[in-house]
Formats: sequence, structure tokens, C-alpha cells
Amino acid sequence: MMGAALAGAFVDRGHPTTVWNRSAARADALVARGASRAETVADAVSASEVIVLCVVDYDAAHAILDSVGDALSGRVLVNLTSGTPGQARATAEWAAERGVDYLDGAIMAVPQGIGRPGARVLFGGDKATLTALEPTLAAIGTAVHLGEDAGIAALYDLALLGIMWSTLSGFLHGTALVGTAGIEPKAFTRQAVEWLGAVGTFLPGFAAAVASGDFTTDVSRLSLNADGLDLLVRTSAEQGIGVEVPAPLRDLYARGVAEGHGEHAIASLIELIRRPAGA
Amino acid sequence: MMGAALAGAFVDRGHPTTVWNRSAARADALVARGASRAETVADAVSASEVIVLCVVDYDAAHAILDSVGDALSGRVLVNLTSGTPGQARATAEWAAERGVDYLDGAIMAVPQGIGRPGARVLFGGDKATLTALEPTLAAIGTAVHLGEDAGIAALYDLALLGIMWSTLSGFLHGTALVGTAGIEPKAFTRQAVEWLGAVGTFLPGFAAAVASGDFTTDVSRLSLNADGLDLLVRTSAEQGIGVEVPAPLRDLYARGVAEGHGEHAIASLIELIRRPAGA
Ligand SMILES: [Ca+2]
Ligand SMILES: [Ca+2]
Repeated sequence: MMGAALAGAFVDRGHPTTVWNRSAARADALVARGASRAETVADAVSASEVIVLCVVDYDAAHAILDSVGDALSGRVLVNLTSGTPGQARATAEWAAERGVDYLDGAIMAVPQGIGRPGARVLFGGDKATLTALEPTLAAIGTAVHLGEDAGIAALYDLALLGIMWSTLSGFLHGTALVGTAGIEPKAFTRQAVEWLGAVGTFLPGFAAAVASGDFTTDVSRLSLNADGLDLLVRTSAEQGIGVEVPAPLRDLYARGVAEGHGEHAIASLIELIRRPAGA
Repeated sequence: MMGAALAGAFVDRGHPTTVWNRSAARADALVARGASRAETVADAVSASEVIVLCVVDYDAAHAILDSVGDALSGRVLVNLTSGTPGQARATAEWAAERGVDYLDGAIMAVPQGIGRPGARVLFGGDKATLTALEPTLAAIGTAVHLGEDAGIAALYDLALLGIMWSTLSGFLHGTALVGTAGIEPKAFTRQAVEWLGAVGTFLPGFAAAVASGDFTTDVSRLSLNADGLDLLVRTSAEQGIGVEVPAPLRDLYARGVAEGHGEHAIASLIELIRRPAGA
């Protein structure tokens, strides 16, 4: 699905695009839109200077790459497959050994968002290589160079998805809570989206506090928020819904207060979060 | 702090403003900016048609209100104190018994955000009363009428703050994770803010799924995200940081898969979240 979205975006932007998919039928719709079909991976590789690879995981990626290895020499391989930093770095080495320019990227968008405003693709690898490709990559989203380390995009990806999983869980819990009072999800979501935008404006201040280690606050001290989380858990239980989402947060904030951060900014929780389990 | 921010916003917008604070000195800066000082709560009440009350909790609020009770008759009391829906409704009844028009509000902003773009104040109470006050309240933020129930703003407040607490925790964890690879908070935050904006665009789709109960997805099935959360927990542990933020989410998503939602949208987790503890 993501592969089709990517190829479709290149086609729609007028780039000569050759597609290959393990099941040939999956490429039919793209061919109808103007893509050329490659019968084999080798044909796909030889068709272009730039090869964009996006499959389910690095095992699948390497099965494909191993089948064409040296044919990639002198070309640019843009790997958008999800994986770990270690897998990305190993693939970068594999590419370097074969004279293949390599960029490892993480797509921060859903398939439907590819090629539309807001789609971003984060990259690790050689900056000059990425800069040269930016006009082409603009078809799928804004390309962002994070650093020379091939594994950096995978690490950002995990960290950013972590924010998403946290936010979505909080949103679903909030939806369930107001739902107990008959408030419809759509009405709640209107306020949730606006509020999430406001929360986004708080993040730079958090970053500054984490960077400096100065957790004095004139906004909202941790103890107040710990009390609020306690109220959220109690109210959720009273309203008859689960507490799996807010209860662990209540415990984390309470530990922060117990460790002396009650008068500090919420950002002071970084000191607990950084500490390995059991330490 | 919030009280001073509110009063200051009214003063700066040119509204004749009378301030009262338990410690008179706290009002000095406001008086210097053009506010009038009331020696007593009763003086403050008699000075205006509209009384804005914002103190630390409803106990403090009622201590103040009980001291002036009937003097509020015929006026409008706008209560922006944080509390529970029950406390808000009880205060609405108290006001009704005394012929006081009452609006109970939740401020979705930090003190520094009052009177600036993005500040929103959510209200429960009589819609016509709020509509008549909107020009005045515009000094502090956009007023939003949620419903006639005086307790509705308090419930939204808790639910929205829950989203904030979840998001901030996810953000701090992500910051800690990329920090282990030497990535500075400021650089990570640039991407985090953009990504959070993208996440906001996913919420209406979630709301629609929750409302309809149709959890089929063509975007990202739960099992994929559960695997991702497992990778986040393992990578965090490998990198030597704590897992208190992502581990409970991993468990929740895994339970969702175990209960048969693996091929469904993430929104299907609402069925677990709605379920009371132990059910
Ligand atoms: Ca990648
Ligand atoms: Ca309130």
C-alpha cells in the first residue's frame, strides 16, 4: 500500500517510473496511470538511476537486494523500509561495498498522505546525495536530512511513532471519558485537535528545559499535574471506564513528585525516563 | 498566576477591571497597568456586572462565594476554577438559587498564552449568557460553548489534559531515546512538532471509527503498531533508558491483538479502554 502510494506520487508528478512488485497484478493500477512495468527486479534496477525500495521489513529488502546486488552499482538506492538503526547501517555498508549511493529514510505519513502537504520523509546518509535528489523526492513529501548516520532516520521514526502511540491512546481515553456523559466523538475531536495544536507549542520549552537541565517553572508544576492525573484516574473509574491509559502516567508523575520534582516543570520527568529499568 | 494573566488581558484590552486578591500585594502590578483595586470581595463584586473567578480549587472558590452570596444576584459569575463536573454543577445550583447567571469554564491555555492566538476557554452553561459575553471574553481567548450542563467543561478539561499528559510523556521518552544517539532535544523537537501536527489530522478518522464501530482499516492495522511498540520497548531497553512510558502501551496494544483486533484500526482499542478495570 505504501509502495503503491509512493510509485503513484512519482507517476502523477510526471517522473518516468518503472515499478516491480512480487505479485505482478499489484502493479496493474500503476501501469494504467503511466508507470512502466518491470518483469524482474533486475529490469527495474536497470531502468533508472534512482531506485526507491519500500517493502515490509529488512529481511524482505535484503532478499530483493541480494538478487540484484552489483546491478545497483553507480545508482542511488533510497530505502524507505521500516527497521532498526542497526539494520539501516548494515544495509548502508552493503551498499557502500557495491559502489551504491545509499539513503535510508523514514516516511512520516500514512499512504493517503503521500504527495500531499504535510508529508515528510526523514533521511540518514550523505547530505549531497540527498540534496541532489530533493526535486525528485518532492513528489512524495518534504525530504529532511537528519544526519550522515544511515541509522538516524530509523531512530527518529521509533521515537516519533512513540509520540503518536502515546497521543492516540490519550485521545481514545478522552473520547471514552466524555462518551460516558453522552458527548459524541466528533464534538470532542474538534476540541482535541485544537488542543493538540496548543500542546505542540509547549514542546520547544520542554526541549529547552531538557537541554539545560533547568526545571524551574512559571507555568505548571509537576505536583499540580500529578494531582490532575490522579483525578483523571479516579473520574475514569467512577464513570465506569478502564484506567490502563492514565494509571501508569499517574504513577510516573507521582514518582517524580516523590523524588523531589514537585515544584519543577513536567520536563523534569526526563530524569526518571532516562533511567534504565531497575535503576 | 492564571488570575493575574486573566485580569491583565482584560485590562490590556481596555475593559474597566477591578481586581481582588487574598494578598493585596499580588494586585499591585495589575493596578499599575490600570486596574482598580477592591479592598474586599464584596467591593469587587459590586464594581461589575461580570465577575470572573479563578482560584486554586472549588473549596477556595466557595469560601469566597459564601462571603458575598446574595451580592452576586443579577450579575454574571464566570467561574474558571479547575474542578470536577460535580463541583461545577453544585456551584451552578448555588448560583441559580441566588439569581446569579453562571458559566463554568475550563481554560485550555497556559498563563502566558492568555489573550494570544490559540487560547481557548470551554464553557458549560446557558448559551445566550455566553453569547452575550463573548465580546468581553475575547480578551482572554476564544470562548466555546460545549453545552448547557455546567459540568461539561470540567469533563472536557480532564479528557483534554489527559491527551496532553500522554503526549508529553511520549515526547519526553522520544527525546530520551534519540538522546542516547547524541541527538539534541532541539533538533528532535523540530520533527516532533511537525509530526504531532500530522497526528492531529488522523484524529477525525479515529472519531468516525469510534462513532460507527467500523474498525476496518486501509491505513495501519493494530498488529503492525503492536509490533512497533514492542520494538520501541526493546530498543529503549537496549539503549539504556527506562520503559515506563511505552511498556504499558505495548501491553494495551498486545491485548487488543489478543482479543481479535489485529487486522483492525488502532481505534478499535476503544473497546478495551471503555471496559471498566477487572471487566
Ligand atoms: Ca528506513
Ligand atoms: Ca471550571
